[in-house]
Amino acid sequence: MSSPKIVNGSGGYILQDVPHLIDYLPDLPTYQNPLKDNPAYSVVKQYFVDTEDTVPEKIIVHKDGPRGIHFRRAGPRQKVYFESDEVHACIVTCGGLCPGLNTVIRELVSSLSYMYGVKRILGIDGGYKGFYAKNTIPLNSKVVNDIHKRGGTIIGTSRGGHDTTKIVDSIQDRGINQVYIIGGDGTQRGASKIYEEIRRRGLKVAVVGIPKTIDNDIPVIDRSFGFDTAVEEAQRAINAAHVEAESNENGIGFVKLMGRHSGFIAMYATLASRDVDCCLIPESPFYLEGEGGLFEYIEKRLKEHGHMVIVLAEGAGQEMMSKSMESNTLEDASGNKLLKDVGLWLSQSIKDHFKKIKMVMNLKYIDPTYMIRAIPSNAADNVYCTLLAQSAVHGAMAGYTGYTSGLVHGRQTYIPFYRITEKQNKVVITDRMWARLLSSTNQPSFLGPKDISEAKKEKAPPTDGEICNGVVDIPPVTKEITK
Amino acid sequence: MSSPKIVNGSGGYILQDVPHLIDYLPDLPTYQNPLKDNPAYSVVKQYFVDTEDTVPEKIIVHKDGPRGIHFRRAGPRQKVYFESDEVHACIVTCGGLCPGLNTVIRELVSSLSYMYGVKRILGIDGGYKGFYAKNTIPLNSKVVNDIHKRGGTIIGTSRGGHDTTKIVDSIQDRGINQVYIIGGDGTQRGASKIYEEIRRRGLKVAVVGIPKTIDNDIPVIDRSFGFDTAVEEAQRAINAAHVEAESNENGIGFVKLMGRHSGFIAMYATLASRDVDCCLIPESPFYLEGEGGLFEYIEKRLKEHGHMVIVLAEGAGQEMMSKSMESNTLEDASGNKLLKDVGLWLSQSIKDHFKKIKMVMNLKYIDPTYMIRAIPSNAADNVYCTLLAQSAVHGAMAGYTGYTSGLVHGRQTYIPFYRITEKQNKVVITDRMWARLLSSTNQPSFLGPKDISEAKKEKAPPTDGEICNGVVDIPPVTKEITK
Amino acid sequence: MSSPKIVNGSGGYILQDVPHLIDYLPDLPTYQNPLKDNPAYSVVKQYFVDTEDTVPEKIIVHKDGPRGIHFRRAGPRQKVYFESDEVHACIVTCGGLCPGLNTVIRELVSSLSYMYGVKRILGIDGGYKGFYAKNTIPLNSKVVNDIHKRGGTIIGTSRGGHDTTKIVDSIQDRGINQVYIIGGDGTQRGASKIYEEIRRRGLKVAVVGIPKTIDNDIPVIDRSFGFDTAVEEAQRAINAAHVEAESNENGIGFVKLMGRHSGFIAMYATLASRDVDCCLIPESPFYLEGEGGLFEYIEKRLKEHGHMVIVLAEGAGQEMMSKSMESNTLEDASGNKLLKDVGLWLSQSIKDHFKKIKMVMNLKYIDPTYMIRAIPSNAADNVYCTLLAQSAVHGAMAGYTGYTSGLVHGRQTYIPFYRITEKQNKVVITDRMWARLLSSTNQPSFLGPKDISEAKKEKAPPTDGEICNGVVDIPPVTKEITK
Amino acid sequence: MSSPKIVNGSGGYILQDVPHLIDYLPDLPTYQNPLKDNPAYSVVKQYFVDTEDTVPEKIIVHKDGPRGIHFRRAGPRQKVYFESDEVHACIVTCGGLCPGLNTVIRELVSSLSYMYGVKRILGIDGGYKGFYAKNTIPLNSKVVNDIHKRGGTIIGTSRGGHDTTKIVDSIQDRGINQVYIIGGDGTQRGASKIYEEIRRRGLKVAVVGIPKTIDNDIPVIDRSFGFDTAVEEAQRAINAAHVEAESNENGIGFVKLMGRHSGFIAMYATLASRDVDCCLIPESPFYLEGEGGLFEYIEKRLKEHGHMVIVLAEGAGQEMMSKSMESNTLEDASGNKLLKDVGLWLSQSIKDHFKKIKMVMNLKYIDPTYMIRAIPSNAADNVYCTLLAQSAVHGAMAGYTGYTSGLVHGRQTYIPFYRITEKQNKVVITDRMWARLLSSTNQPSFLGPKDISEAKKEKAPPTDGEICNGVVDIPPVTKEITK
Repeated sequence: MSSPKIVNGSGGYILQDVPHLIDYLPDLPTYQNPLKDNPAYSVVKQYFVDTEDTVPEKIIVHKDGPRGIHFRRAGPRQKVYFESDEVHACIVTCGGLCPGLNTVIRELVSSLSYMYGVKRILGIDGGYKGFYAKNTIPLNSKVVNDIHKRGGTIIGTSRGGHDTTKIVDSIQDRGINQVYIIGGDGTQRGASKIYEEIRRRGLKVAVVGIPKTIDNDIPVIDRSFGFDTAVEEAQRAINAAHVEAESNENGIGFVKLMGRHSGFIAMYATLASRDVDCCLIPESPFYLEGEGGLFEYIEKRLKEHGHMVIVLAEGAGQEMMSKSMESNTLEDASGNKLLKDVGLWLSQSIKDHFKKIKMVMNLKYIDPTYMIRAIPSNAADNVYCTLLAQSAVHGAMAGYTGYTSGLVHGRQTYIPFYRITEKQNKVVITDRMWARLLSSTNQPSFLGPKDISEAKKEKAPPTDGEICNGVVDIPPVTKEITK
Repeated sequence: MSSPKIVNGSGGYILQDVPHLIDYLPDLPTYQNPLKDNPAYSVVKQYFVDTEDTVPEKIIVHKDGPRGIHFRRAGPRQKVYFESDEVHACIVTCGGLCPGLNTVIRELVSSLSYMYGVKRILGIDGGYKGFYAKNTIPLNSKVVNDIHKRGGTIIGTSRGGHDTTKIVDSIQDRGINQVYIIGGDGTQRGASKIYEEIRRRGLKVAVVGIPKTIDNDIPVIDRSFGFDTAVEEAQRAINAAHVEAESNENGIGFVKLMGRHSGFIAMYATLASRDVDCCLIPESPFYLEGEGGLFEYIEKRLKEHGHMVIVLAEGAGQEMMSKSMESNTLEDASGNKLLKDVGLWLSQSIKDHFKKIKMVMNLKYIDPTYMIRAIPSNAADNVYCTLLAQSAVHGAMAGYTGYTSGLVHGRQTYIPFYRITEKQNKVVITDRMWARLLSSTNQPSFLGPKDISEAKKEKAPPTDGEICNGVVDIPPVTKEITK
Repeated sequence: MSSPKIVNGSGGYILQDVPHLIDYLPDLPTYQNPLKDNPAYSVVKQYFVDTEDTVPEKIIVHKDGPRGIHFRRAGPRQKVYFESDEVHACIVTCGGLCPGLNTVIRELVSSLSYMYGVKRILGIDGGYKGFYAKNTIPLNSKVVNDIHKRGGTIIGTSRGGHDTTKIVDSIQDRGINQVYIIGGDGTQRGASKIYEEIRRRGLKVAVVGIPKTIDNDIPVIDRSFGFDTAVEEAQRAINAAHVEAESNENGIGFVKLMGRHSGFIAMYATLASRDVDCCLIPESPFYLEGEGGLFEYIEKRLKEHGHMVIVLAEGAGQEMMSKSMESNTLEDASGNKLLKDVGLWLSQSIKDHFKKIKMVMNLKYIDPTYMIRAIPSNAADNVYCTLLAQSAVHGAMAGYTGYTSGLVHGRQTYIPFYRITEKQNKVVITDRMWARLLSSTNQPSFLGPKDISEAKKEKAPPTDGEICNGVVDIPPVTKEITK
Repeated sequence: MSSPKIVNGSGGYILQDVPHLIDYLPDLPTYQNPLKDNPAYSVVKQYFVDTEDTVPEKIIVHKDGPRGIHFRRAGPRQKVYFESDEVHACIVTCGGLCPGLNTVIRELVSSLSYMYGVKRILGIDGGYKGFYAKNTIPLNSKVVNDIHKRGGTIIGTSRGGHDTTKIVDSIQDRGINQVYIIGGDGTQRGASKIYEEIRRRGLKVAVVGIPKTIDNDIPVIDRSFGFDTAVEEAQRAINAAHVEAESNENGIGFVKLMGRHSGFIAMYATLASRDVDCCLIPESPFYLEGEGGLFEYIEKRLKEHGHMVIVLAEGAGQEMMSKSMESNTLEDASGNKLLKDVGLWLSQSIKDHFKKIKMVMNLKYIDPTYMIRAIPSNAADNVYCTLLAQSAVHGAMAGYTGYTSGLVHGRQTYIPFYRITEKQNKVVITDRMWARLLSSTNQPSFLGPKDISEAKKEKAPPTDGEICNGVVDIPPVTKEITK
């Protein structure tokens, strides 16, 4: 792997810069940015981003603290490294659906064609494997005109299928020189490999990642597109669960939400709703039986209130389920797979428990996952996707490569791949945000003293201005901005 | 007026601090923050905010640039200046409706009662004048339990009615010692006066502003609560306008949106929708007749596309309308007032023009203002309002006063009143965001060379790290964050 | 005009039949209905409608009462009078937008092409005048595939433009032999003239009306398509009005809804909402000043409740406004036209009154008209439009002409034009439905003794089984039915 | 059981009348209906329903056919059998949730209190067993004022718990004399038993059923309340399924909807949506393997279109699943119950099949059941519920008992219990409506020749005017009407 580009400055300033085509193709010619002649920009005072502009990773600072890590600010540059006629761009979407995919596709195409006069843009059909296994889909501003009003992705998606050599062969064969890759952390890792291989082959091809994860589990960036829409749509399921719970004797409304490794959707949906009595996420271990366990809490809550609402992120309680399944002879049976759904498993476990203790209980299970993923992005996400796509294009035109376009504290930046893929963004249960949630639901922490001390140990206290990260890094549900 | 509290640090660091009760009541006792014993916070590593924490106003920085202005970070402090039993809080909402008012009220009440054990909370009925002209409404967590699902404000609101002496008399008479004031810039100016008078009288009363403006015209903060919901709901009107326009010969769908002095809702709604052909805002002058005027553009657009959608912020074109009205004898007639609505005036002007040039045209006028203002806040605004209210309460309990609770780059901060009231936040038409809009609608700038040079002059180019402000300051539609 | 076809039967049975091509072209050949070979229909027991099937106009009957008027039941017939290859159909939409127009267009095209193998279908662009002034739009099942998810009409619409000779010339020139005309009572009158002229010329052309009126003012039929959707969407405006009213001192939420001559939308929206304190419709006269007037009621209501919601159908109070305007010198001024909007006029009158009596009052005016008209039809209307369109096509294929396809007591029927155009459907204020409304809002009837006796006189008491009609005729918001 | 009350008239007229208190308490006094003095009704010409009014069961009639069965028209009568002060009413809701329950409760309370001045109204808590096992909930117009905007039932519900003796004891003990029972066919059977026991004991207690079934499986009536709302809400799930299907390689969007014994929701949701490729309902048998089976159809569809949407009513394919489960050793295992969900079972079977034939396929399973049941009723259902509740109350006040209040061809009627409980309303697959569905989805009928001949045999061809019933009986999604 090529080594990180780091620039140091005064007062502890560090810039984690992104690669540029001239890092390995030093003699590339440059051209005037065609935006200079765009009438829409005639009023703009200082349209092109100052190349010195950077954005700090941490912004909770002390008077005399060090300045810390910074990222390069995104935006159009005075000079570009591609002529309009020369550009041959492609776009690929990988992984599960997420609100906003079509908006990003639309705005990549619009930015390329309206801002930079690019005429050749391809959609790769059905994820990474579309590079070598399927036909491509020609894209232009007419084709994408109304797609932001529809959910899903018009170029199709799939999981896996990454084969670096085949993909780069296909890029080379087709003469593609700008590759826009929309996907989650696995996809971004794939993008990084594609970038490395392209660099190894010495090709003039910009590789750009656009982070997509409905779970919001990508680090560094404020939040991922579609997250806002997903939290909003999840309210509908929680409301229904609340109604079902209230109308039945000892009613439990049980909602499973997305979140394999990160409970952000569950946490924010819970905070926004205020009707939830228990929120279970992968980051916070819990147990069922005995004192301080989930069953005890449910019994107590039902006795006090007569009903309750539980929200479960799909990744929560996985180990418990696995253990329960092992001791169980159903493994090879055809029905077994269904049980891997933790929502079904846990709701069945709760039912079994109440049957055992002979307490009436009515549990209604709601899994809105595919109804949430498939809706079009809301207005906030639409604006966000627009700016994200424009930033992605400006960077590639300016010759940057091997970067992810991302929002940091409401500013568009270019982030090196390694920062996006090195770890997952997770709810930090020793943070105030999770405390707020516990406080709002009144649920116990389900943690023993050991869990607590481990949780507290997990991250050494930060020594500089920014006291924590974790949740801090996530949210600015921003609508850019920038000059 | 009391003088600003400024702290300087190394590297050009400036802290614009907020007042504290001990500034004028130096001998106040302090108490242990009761949150320390809250089980929900038992897992939190470092629950109380470090008193040194600050947040920079500008975050686009250069390697060796000065550090600039900072604000005090919001959050709970180790020591509080009020005992639970001692607190007697009141909440007042002023000005027009905005999605999220009830959520803020709910969370102020919840934070005070659940976090700090406060028992005495009053709603002031119907805005500022409710302090002296009306009965108060007792608030507790049961009363506010479901109000976040309803639009409006349960404690009523009104415009004007500010009378500093009467209000402070009433505060003193009732023994209120925490005053939470939710309103726009005029309201915040009123809050500032109340604070000054309270300080003059030497009262132990914390005065806290919570900025409310659906127009997003309050400076410094990322965005105001309800703005996100308003932009989302505006899509509905734009969609309808688009359908009406497309289904009629030379159809024009004309939507008037909020924005007396600032065109943010119109701008963001336009950017989110992509169906708008012309967006008119107060910040960008335009004219109707002649070359480069609005009529010419409409004619051209209809000839090319057969239909168009116009979005108008209510403050746009006011001077033109005033002039047109003066030369008009209707002034004293009863119908005259209706004409002060720029939407009705402009749509009539367009109709008259097309009648004059004998061109078929079908204009449908939509004014969704009250339908937008009155809806409940969406999930993103719900979370935002929650954090805003919690921050407001933490600050008052910690003895701060004379501040507005506000979001800066996704961080909750305490901002001195003078920064909130010294000017209005406006769309900067020499900024990239407005250029993006022009580019997306393809509308002309409607500016003559003189306008352009004036617009460019308006703000001297910033000399430090952050290259522009204006739009930059607005948006982070954030869901906090913080430790 | 050709004379009505009446068939009499035993027990007072009367059939008001519709014309048939063989009435004036007696030697037309017939063909086997191609549906016979459609696999989807292989299971159907008795697919073709018995030609004897009829549906009674009145269904509230007495044991020994006469049987009364009946209409021909709609549906496919064994024999058709057109071969698939021979058919050249056209579709035209006239008048204002209404939810469901695109669904009707879609289903006319689908029925013609899928059921009867028709290949030549034209959309007439922009209403009646499109027959002679514009190009046509070729329609096929691919073009219309997704249009039911959009509001408006893809073939455009306009008011007026009816010129019988030019239209029939155009029909003849183009070789069109099935004409589907979607529009309100004026449009249906036009359709009747086209039918008469076609009959006069002896052309083998079926003329079919599909009643469209968002106001539900077409007689005989249960309800018009889009009405259900409109009532639903109107709730949104009423909710907003309610919130605005409740949040302001003496707040009035004032909603203007559609209904030039018939107050059905206002009445049903009021009944569905339950938040309305006063509903004003064209059928029920009212006055402003003095005892028993509107102003008195508003004052009383505000004093008692502190807020109120008023719903006004656009046709209500027109005479009062006209009188007020006459005595007013604004007639020729440019602003005058705006005042013709009764909503603006009445809300201004209310404001003026409260200013005069010096009572604080906050009125918020909401006109959601174009937001309601432009939305896509809801599920109930989608099914309704589907059946309506299918019935229309079955009739034309079977050789019927000069009819309107309409729903009577939940059954699809063919109704002769004269029954649809002879009068408008109106809310009968001496009926129980309006009494229910008065009872639900608690508003006075605003009628003097003279009004009441006149209202009661207006319709002689029916003498047969069905005791009233009026509202009775309207509603069945049906999803067909039929064999 | 008491014997049916039948009245015969001329022309084959039959009235299936409902019981009346004087059938077994012949000497009951009567009183003037208090509505006579209600100001809202002062304008009404003929407010009280003529006691001779009846509504025909079949309305597709032939010129000289017999008149057939009729039902008594609902509405207020001149004479009532209860004084206002005497009435002690109770309301109970049984079975699963259905949109509109709270609206019916609200309108029963409003009608009793506003129209008839009744002061004592009880809610029975949690279904039938609430009569003897729980406390009651006092109801008045203030308590129920806003409940129609919420889903669920404020008085709780449960399944089963019917114990005739205990219930009638409780009615007698509490001095209740009007019993309103809201529930499905099982509940109505229970109501019938309560009526018989009350009659046996000679009590002056009116027993009134209000049919509630989201599945629309109650015969005779046009449609059940909440059905319209449910079909509308189901569109959301189908849209999501469509997006998921289109965005994935060989994507299948699979939606399970309500419908244990009747496929109406699935059928109407499919007809309204137009995005469904296969609709499976309990009434139409199907098989998986081999020629003409479901798997073959799915393979074919995916090969042709690349994606498909399947809608399954929960009662479809139950036998197949049972057989599959029997031959399967999972019976006693804890996971077994989950498999009884036919949606999970069938989607797993499809996955297994495609794995076996090694064809890529992506199935996304959506079960929106509880999200549909729990929403508030839409405007159409609100009006419907209002009229239904009013009719129920008018009947009881007029002394009728042992009846269900129901909509027949858009008219409110009183139907004897035995007609409601004697069979379930089902989709008749030999009817045109199902043929329309097959035609719209292009799915095969999945019927062998034997199935077809059996289906056709199932119901002898009707001999009178109305040629079929089945679907015919369902839909008028009406908003009453009546004089």
